[in-house]
Amino acid sequence: MTDDWSSALLTDRYELTMLQGALRSGAAHRRTVFEMFARRLPDERRYGVVAGTGRFLEALRDFRFDTPTLDFLSDNGIVDDSTLKWLAEYRFSGDIWGYGEGDVYFPGSPILVVEGTFAESVILETVALSIFNHDSAIASAASRMVTAANGRPLIEMGSRRTHEMSAVAAARAAYLTGFATTSNLEAGRRYGIPTAGTSAHAFVLAHDSERHAFTAQLDALGPETTLLVDTFDVDRAVRTAIELAGEKLGGVRLDSGDLGATAARVRDLLDQHGATGTRVLVTGDLDEYAIQALAIAPVDGYGVGTALVTGSGSPTVSLVYKLVARARGTAPDDRLEPVAKRSVGKPSKGGRKWGSRRLDDQGVATAEIVYDHEPEEEPGVRPLLRRLVDNGEIVGTEPLSAARERHKGALAELPEEARRMSGGEPAIPTLFERLHP
Amino acid sequence: MTDDWSSALLTDRYELTMLQGALRSGAAHRRTVFEMFARRLPDERRYGVVAGTGRFLEALRDFRFDTPTLDFLSDNGIVDDSTLKWLAEYRFSGDIWGYGEGDVYFPGSPILVVEGTFAESVILETVALSIFNHDSAIASAASRMVTAANGRPLIEMGSRRTHEMSAVAAARAAYLTGFATTSNLEAGRRYGIPTAGTSAHAFVLAHDSERHAFTAQLDALGPETTLLVDTFDVDRAVRTAIELAGEKLGGVRLDSGDLGATAARVRDLLDQHGATGTRVLVTGDLDEYAIQALAIAPVDGYGVGTALVTGSGSPTVSLVYKLVARARGTAPDDRLEPVAKRSVGKPSKGGRKWGSRRLDDQGVATAEIVYDHEPEEEPGVRPLLRRLVDNGEIVGTEPLSAARERHKGALAELPEEARRMSGGEPAIPTLFERLHP
Repeated sequence: MTDDWSSALLTDRYELTMLQGALRSGAAHRRTVFEMFARRLPDERRYGVVAGTGRFLEALRDFRFDTPTLDFLSDNGIVDDSTLKWLAEYRFSGDIWGYGEGDVYFPGSPILVVEGTFAESVILETVALSIFNHDSAIASAASRMVTAANGRPLIEMGSRRTHEMSAVAAARAAYLTGFATTSNLEAGRRYGIPTAGTSAHAFVLAHDSERHAFTAQLDALGPETTLLVDTFDVDRAVRTAIELAGEKLGGVRLDSGDLGATAARVRDLLDQHGATGTRVLVTGDLDEYAIQALAIAPVDGYGVGTALVTGSGSPTVSLVYKLVARARGTAPDDRLEPVAKRSVGKPSKGGRKWGSRRLDDQGVATAEIVYDHEPEEEPGVRPLLRRLVDNGEIVGTEPLSAARERHKGALAELPEEARRMSGGEPAIPTLFERLHP
Repeated sequence: MTDDWSSALLTDRYELTMLQGALRSGAAHRRTVFEMFARRLPDERRYGVVAGTGRFLEALRDFRFDTPTLDFLSDNGIVDDSTLKWLAEYRFSGDIWGYGEGDVYFPGSPILVVEGTFAESVILETVALSIFNHDSAIASAASRMVTAANGRPLIEMGSRRTHEMSAVAAARAAYLTGFATTSNLEAGRRYGIPTAGTSAHAFVLAHDSERHAFTAQLDALGPETTLLVDTFDVDRAVRTAIELAGEKLGGVRLDSGDLGATAARVRDLLDQHGATGTRVLVTGDLDEYAIQALAIAPVDGYGVGTALVTGSGSPTVSLVYKLVARARGTAPDDRLEPVAKRSVGKPSKGGRKWGSRRLDDQGVATAEIVYDHEPEEEPGVRPLLRRLVDNGEIVGTEPLSAARERHKGALAELPEEARRMSGGEPAIPTLFERLHP
């Protein structure tokens, strides 16, 4: 994106028509609290991973109604002149708190809390949900893959299976949960994520023979490169590879067949020829379960594509952005009143909330506590909300490495069953603590 | 995107390291054919929908290695200086053919055929697959929803459940299959898709009462607006709505509960009060099956979100981009030789291909024919490849309305069982016709 990029139209039309209505009625200027949370975790997962915070803060910075944007709204009669005038001046001036990026979440966790006027807060709904729903879905799946890989490095390589810009965000989300590298160059450029990749079957087929192709690759990339050995006959390819590269060969990649059995055979073959340092990398429709099943195979790294970028069965998490409190008047000190839709089967709790994680003496998480009041500091209770925006000023920006570190810590804090692949209840219960029950 | 946007890094790193190897060996300059096709349809679908062609041609136009892009590649040691020099001059100079956007496809259909040097063709793989895999997944699901809606209008409103840029592409893909409108304003601006949307529960809750909110909305948007009536009590809300707006009320929207039963009750209520022209719109976790189940309910339109943007269970289609032929020398008239990976369970057919659809006397499709040679014109056989790029010049750009019309025609041509919601075999078989069997 370039400097004159505006994110303001990544927005559902109804946000702006609501704005117009609220400007008319005056409700636009009421102080409100919107909250982002999930009613449930997808697919019997034990925890979710908060991701998208950094990208949301960038989108917030770029959320402004410049002349081309206003012209579109005007030419298409989407809002009236007084609304256009209001939008032209738009800068979010309120406060935002959120769970730290990379932290885990549970049903009801208030992962983003937006406090500002109704007008300035409601129009952020769509872009905030798009970013968090996508990135958290990818991160929630990715985190399980990292656990399944049990210390072996993971390469994110799913760009081709998802929208070209989702691909960049997916690489970011995977990296923050512990993936080692990505194939996506734009993710490398934009976020500084290490990139990886050497060659595909097309490279072998473009040459006269596998030997011709391997020679070309070794010439160009050196013996430390990884050769793809399953275009024709794996064993023959591995022998050719060692013959050409010697014991210094960086790695071989398997992309098809019975990966576990083939990896074992290839490992033996490499070792027999003294290439004991050559890594065996496997790719090809891997997900967290396939990764776990390969735990006993002599594999040095996994490449994951489709399953990663599609959230391994859950391409979106059902985060919602709900108005939970509003003032009746428009004075800054008017009392915030809880509000909620009357909903069957979708319990919504009105009122501003605060989230904390309770830990036992061993530092293991035992509960997610959601308060209807700002809680006192307490030993063994970790407050989860960070200040992201302070009176309109973005203060929560942090390097991606901070989110990566945070995820590691948050995951380690969860009880052991959270890190099992099997489905079940959330790893810890969510407890609602009311000041006045 | 703005003018200085480059799509060149929406690319897997290995495309560029392959380029470097092939420049070293000389294979870079061999003439090649790459083909995009699917080995299967997802989820027992009867047909797939080609979407993304227009977006791919835009990405191709913007696929150039400008100075910041080259700097990134150089600073990170991704390719060597001679490769950087080659990339700096890069413009695709070959030929591309493709199925018309909006047409349907089957296993083996050569939906994109790229002919050029290995170097210039291989590096388009990632961005081409990202675009077609995403857009075709959405369009393939959307087309079934349009069939299920049986003439009733569909609103695409899934932006919040997918990456913010995927949302824009999803709106485009849905529109080309026959959706009436989108909630996404950027899709409106970028592609001229009609936008829709009026208000959410937050609007009602921001006001003192539902009556207060309805009054504000009617004041701001006029009586033709659609009021959301399920925040508290539907029947009471409908009565309030008619009381305030009169018989001219444009519509009411239901977003929760038993949509069929509630729609019937609301329809009666509206009719009793003379609001016979007021439309009843339903939203809330609809997919093609839920839409079909509402066929007998008095519903005037459907809003579809999550199921649309996640491809209704298939968020990606497994399109691949494979080298199928290459010359051995680098002279322009060197013969193209078929090539293919030796693959267990993944039959790949080498050689350039042409696709046609065979129709019977009634104009009903009976087979997808994939030739290994350019077929003669024949009555009752519709050739499916359009020229998209001619010697590097983009010639296949067309308005989105053309893809929308084409989809309508292609779908109508399929046998009736193709339009059933139930799973099964592809609606027509794919036949491979060899010149020299």
